[in-house]
Amino acid sequence: MDIATRVYNHKWKIDPIVRSLIDTDFYKLLMCQSVFRNRPDTRVTFSLINRTTSVPLAKLIDEGELREQLDHIRSLSLSRGESTWLRGNTFYGKRQMFRPDFMEWFENLRLPAYELERRGDQYELTFEGTWPEVMLWEIPALAVLMELRGRAVLNDMGRFELQVLYARAMTRVWEKIERLREVETLKIADFGTRRRHSFLWQDWCVQAMMEGLGDKFIGTSNCLIAMRREVEAIGTNAHELPMVYAALAEDDAALARAPYDVLSDWHEEHEGNLRMILPDTYGTEGFLKHAPDWLAGWTGIRIDSGDPAAGAETAIRWWKERGEDPTQKLVIFSDGLDVDKIIDLHHQFQGRVRASFGWGTLLTNDFRGLVPGDRLAPFSLVCKAVSANGRPTVKLSDNPEKAMGPEDEIARYKRVFDVGEQERMDVIV
Amino acid sequence: MDIATRVYNHKWKIDPIVRSLIDTDFYKLLMCQSVFRNRPDTRVTFSLINRTTSVPLAKLIDEGELREQLDHIRSLSLSRGESTWLRGNTFYGKRQMFRPDFMEWFENLRLPAYELERRGDQYELTFEGTWPEVMLWEIPALAVLMELRGRAVLNDMGRFELQVLYARAMTRVWEKIERLREVETLKIADFGTRRRHSFLWQDWCVQAMMEGLGDKFIGTSNCLIAMRREVEAIGTNAHELPMVYAALAEDDAALARAPYDVLSDWHEEHEGNLRMILPDTYGTEGFLKHAPDWLAGWTGIRIDSGDPAAGAETAIRWWKERGEDPTQKLVIFSDGLDVDKIIDLHHQFQGRVRASFGWGTLLTNDFRGLVPGDRLAPFSLVCKAVSANGRPTVKLSDNPEKAMGPEDEIARYKRVFDVGEQERMDVIV
Repeated sequence: MDIATRVYNHKWKIDPIVRSLIDTDFYKLLMCQSVFRNRPDTRVTFSLINRTTSVPLAKLIDEGELREQLDHIRSLSLSRGESTWLRGNTFYGKRQMFRPDFMEWFENLRLPAYELERRGDQYELTFEGTWPEVMLWEIPALAVLMELRGRAVLNDMGRFELQVLYARAMTRVWEKIERLREVETLKIADFGTRRRHSFLWQDWCVQAMMEGLGDKFIGTSNCLIAMRREVEAIGTNAHELPMVYAALAEDDAALARAPYDVLSDWHEEHEGNLRMILPDTYGTEGFLKHAPDWLAGWTGIRIDSGDPAAGAETAIRWWKERGEDPTQKLVIFSDGLDVDKIIDLHHQFQGRVRASFGWGTLLTNDFRGLVPGDRLAPFSLVCKAVSANGRPTVKLSDNPEKAMGPEDEIARYKRVFDVGEQERMDVIV
Repeated sequence: MDIATRVYNHKWKIDPIVRSLIDTDFYKLLMCQSVFRNRPDTRVTFSLINRTTSVPLAKLIDEGELREQLDHIRSLSLSRGESTWLRGNTFYGKRQMFRPDFMEWFENLRLPAYELERRGDQYELTFEGTWPEVMLWEIPALAVLMELRGRAVLNDMGRFELQVLYARAMTRVWEKIERLREVETLKIADFGTRRRHSFLWQDWCVQAMMEGLGDKFIGTSNCLIAMRREVEAIGTNAHELPMVYAALAEDDAALARAPYDVLSDWHEEHEGNLRMILPDTYGTEGFLKHAPDWLAGWTGIRIDSGDPAAGAETAIRWWKERGEDPTQKLVIFSDGLDVDKIIDLHHQFQGRVRASFGWGTLLTNDFRGLVPGDRLAPFSLVCKAVSANGRPTVKLSDNPEKAMGPEDEIARYKRVFDVGEQERMDVIV
């Protein structure tokens, strides 16, 4: 390494984990623009929730270090090159996906303050403010905690031990890619930003997919990596939209309408492959049963909880009932995927729908079994909207293990959305 | 990478495989000094022999490229720092191991011309000249051919495929080291220069052993790596000494004496751990039976062919017959070792002798099974003295598969050295 580079690197007080506001998932920016347009003044609280309580984050991660990383993120603003890319690039075949008023707002954005408190062996980390600002904390906050936890483990390892750790992890990813590349007509994207092992590791995984999968690799959810590696930025929308819209509903009737209101707003803004239904926030069955007819005309559906094959079968039945041809529809699987499941689902639905896969944590953070005590294994960390304009949010999902919100509100939502018996499934990551 | 480094690297017309005259085995320099002192005017021919004829070197390696690499080696001379290290460093506990007259000669040395001809799918590569000069071709010539063959295979691979190839190889080496580090009182050295995958790879292996094995790793045979990594340079003597001495013998009586003449010269120059007998050139049994008593007082023995356990038992019996205490003797195993064999031998001889291991090709070139067709697997390439002052050399060894020389001469040597039935063993590498 040259001396200048070395000196420059040592000038950093810290080694920042997130170094760009677009080191985030593409759907966050799409949703942010939608919120900026439709509900800009909603005040929300996002909260970090570690569903794997056996990982004692507050024991592993120094509070000062965590604050430094979060403070660094607050110092970030959109760079000129990033802004140019967002303004000028084609996303999902469309130019100027991000409108000038949104871009102007984004260019001036700094992320709002956070509140951090240690509670036992966990951290309570919350973000409060207007929805478009606060929502952009989710991905960097998760990435920071995941990576700091990893660093705490890596700190004790020798140089060659580290090299071999990464050698093993690389070999594992590559062997997965080698299996996937045998699968004809596969379409797969990286969805692994939020719970990645680290930025550099995600970047490596994406490049390995580019080389190993060729056209089968359709892009990454990570905007910064999409920009740098010149691949497609991938993503549509997430549960936070129906969750916040629902929390804002004044009565049960408005609550029942809320998930469709979200998609109605989305319908006006987007077309083609961006018209993807995420039906499971309050139960897929009820959502589809009560859906307006225009929704059946959308391009496809994303299956993010519950038994994925069952979810896809439900969607196929629904399309047929509504007179749609399922073979023309897109089904994106994105929940806890790994190679076996991807290959199974691909073969199961080949020719019946257009299937596509959003491969997340087990792509970008499969360090399972690589260190003693499995202290680098990924775990289930989320950062969710927990309230909107002072009202609690609720998520039911197709797996009760993923449900969240106050108990009485969960009961009310289950009644309003007509949710019956649900199958409990382990949350892998 | 900085621009200057990049430009500098692109200034090389070729990517030289051997970049230093001390990128060679330590015992070559010790032997060279001995030859320089005792037989400086002997004219020898060294020849490259590929014992694995299934590897068609001339089809894999471009002749022009091979010539460029060999020509580059001829352009090398000892650098000031290398000379300072050889003159000033302590080897085997001794200062000024290399005497001023030898160093002066070495500082002015350029390697002599080579002759290269394609014969079918193999190359005929020979070196002729005075012994001290020609002998220094052996290691770089082997390293060049091994690495060019590897490059021919690596050339077709993608960037990430390459990364994963090395990731797998690193993992394999590290897993071997992890097994070895559990072995109490192990002493092991890198002997893998000649048939290494590449220089950088050998350097990596040495560093991994340093970190992973600590004191159990006693050093490397490679002088350049020993200098750079500040570890011991390891090695004593090899078959070429008795082979050339024997070829020069005027009659059968002188021939029978020749292997002992070698060690008599060595005895005057070296003491302690450098007094290692290499008994197998013309059969271990006969060599020990007819050995003069002063040889039993030497520090130990190196087992380089035949069944290693049997060889060590023979040595133990011999020491006992001569009234020596085997537990004070050093036995160095150095033939085709890998982890299983090392661990077995260690346990078998623990407490009975001081055992030590010279781990070669399966340390620095275990790329077996890592590419389709196993085209990176190491193979059995040697570079040997084939004649001295116009007379053919002969090697018998304890494994008839390793014998070399004209048939009638082999018969004569077998008679003179009283070699009986020998067990044939596959030559691994």
